[in-house]
Amino acid sequence: MKHDSLTVQVSRGGVVESEHNIKAVIVSSTGEVVESWGDVASLVYPRSAIKAMQALAFIEMGGAQKFAFNDQEVAICCASHGGEPKHVATVQSMLDKLSLSESDFECGCHWPMRAEASYELAGKGEIPNQLHNNCSGKHAGMLGLAKLLGTSPRGYIEVDHPVQQKISATMAQMCEYDYDNAHWSPDGCSAPTWAMPLTNLALAFAKFSSPDELAPARQKACKTLYDAVVQHPFMVAGTERYCTDMMTTLQQRAFLKLGAEGVYVAAIPELKLGIALKCDDGAIRAAESAMTALLDHVGITSFVPDKEMSRYRSVTLKNWQKRITGAITCDI
Amino acid sequence: MKHDSLTVQVSRGGVVESEHNIKAVIVSSTGEVVESWGDVASLVYPRSAIKAMQALAFIEMGGAQKFAFNDQEVAICCASHGGEPKHVATVQSMLDKLSLSESDFECGCHWPMRAEASYELAGKGEIPNQLHNNCSGKHAGMLGLAKLLGTSPRGYIEVDHPVQQKISATMAQMCEYDYDNAHWSPDGCSAPTWAMPLTNLALAFAKFSSPDELAPARQKACKTLYDAVVQHPFMVAGTERYCTDMMTTLQQRAFLKLGAEGVYVAAIPELKLGIALKCDDGAIRAAESAMTALLDHVGITSFVPDKEMSRYRSVTLKNWQKRITGAITCDI
Repeated sequence: MKHDSLTVQVSRGGVVESEHNIKAVIVSSTGEVVESWGDVASLVYPRSAIKAMQALAFIEMGGAQKFAFNDQEVAICCASHGGEPKHVATVQSMLDKLSLSESDFECGCHWPMRAEASYELAGKGEIPNQLHNNCSGKHAGMLGLAKLLGTSPRGYIEVDHPVQQKISATMAQMCEYDYDNAHWSPDGCSAPTWAMPLTNLALAFAKFSSPDELAPARQKACKTLYDAVVQHPFMVAGTERYCTDMMTTLQQRAFLKLGAEGVYVAAIPELKLGIALKCDDGAIRAAESAMTALLDHVGITSFVPDKEMSRYRSVTLKNWQKRITGAITCDI
Repeated sequence: MKHDSLTVQVSRGGVVESEHNIKAVIVSSTGEVVESWGDVASLVYPRSAIKAMQALAFIEMGGAQKFAFNDQEVAICCASHGGEPKHVATVQSMLDKLSLSESDFECGCHWPMRAEASYELAGKGEIPNQLHNNCSGKHAGMLGLAKLLGTSPRGYIEVDHPVQQKISATMAQMCEYDYDNAHWSPDGCSAPTWAMPLTNLALAFAKFSSPDELAPARQKACKTLYDAVVQHPFMVAGTERYCTDMMTTLQQRAFLKLGAEGVYVAAIPELKLGIALKCDDGAIRAAESAMTALLDHVGITSFVPDKEMSRYRSVTLKNWQKRITGAITCDI
């Protein structure tokens, strides 16, 4: 079933103040497009939404065992984390296990994504380092992959480095898309991101949700990553973040991951479905609202009391005096 | 001339990654719609874009003289400032002149809009107070208006308080819109914001740009506010902010003001024009890009070397390693 784009409305005082358009697609693990909204053949950069696929080669090659990464460390390989103390400590532990240091990262520095973590850091008279980069967990996995491949980690973010070659070959298989002829660009963290149709992104997460048809090592790697993330949702995002909160609410029934510029993916094992969406204008608030509507639509939220779901279904907007000013909603 | 909505494109690696739609209208000081893009009759909350109109009653009643506000203090009445030390000191000086204190504000607290100012504050072990609220200058003007009206400032943010009644009556005249029957909502700072067609917002700033047909006291007040803002553009926004940078570039030829949810207004005296625009999805990056295109379109940027304008016409996007990843552009 094909539909027009979804609409997310942001209201204030009884008037729709802003509106977002969303492309979305639901794909089954056998590759069937179950339902779509808008032009889902158009090219989308998955950005951080694809981090689980970027981690796949490392896990599949036995990286977690070799370096004794625990489940939280496996989970943070898929993260856009808030740079909170627990995230930073987890990534430091991974570097220790790899016998590498912060200076081996090539992701760049930024203040923690969670503002409160930034104020805490500044309050201690500190400035951020590359551990605070929201992608540092992914980069720890990439450094681990360099070690597994027996290659120098230097330049591991470059598109022609063996690390990115291995990662892109794995992703191309999962997405069933020709990466050799695809547009790509450095992502925020300098690792490459490849553009592809939204349907191919959803397909990868459909297979991830139900990997029984994949080769045994990949099956196992998908399950390892899925389990680590849904059991430790704090690790992939953090305090007051949709990925973390909604995965907690769904009690391991879905994997969720945000990408920059309004991308979101979901993998739902008990339905054998993958979902991918993109907000046309790049707004994260809209991508989250649409993801809630799609999770409701496929029925995976039906066990959650309405009282708990209502804060996702209609996100209340408040001002600096905590007065209610509006709401964000998405109807399918 | 009526056109379809403007489009702002955000590109990455040769692909349009995100896209924004913009409604915009150019109105002459005599009330003629010169040119429009998209449905400019639809209702828009002007949010902070209308702050100069909110300050008008206070200036018109002689508030600046009575309380000896200097030009920087007049300018910050129209501000969504970054909470930088100079902004905070300016608003504190206004409170001193009003014999009032920070606790008289009813705008609420938030960390400074400029992240670096927040880190500086946190580094000193401090937390923000209401002076850091980006609207604190506007609220100082509102407290001044309460004094001029001889009324208690308490509750000055409420829609039925004499302060807001006076302000809304003045704005209704400038916008030529029936505020009594308009939708309104508390703004981020709790003062009311009234919804109106975008054309009426542009009309107010067209009259503001060339107020010769207005009553003498209002003419003078418009000129006082215009001059204060264009001579002290740092006061209305701050470091690395479009309002401040573009007004500096335009050398007093235009007044510019941002509003939340992607609103922008301009007043251009030498062309006797007002411009108002709204990004449908609320994105500020898109509102800024479209404002540059409109300033080019009306010809007010023609004296600026291309070399200086190019950073506004194509905003370069860089990642955490300072690699160029894309650009934001708007073609008319």
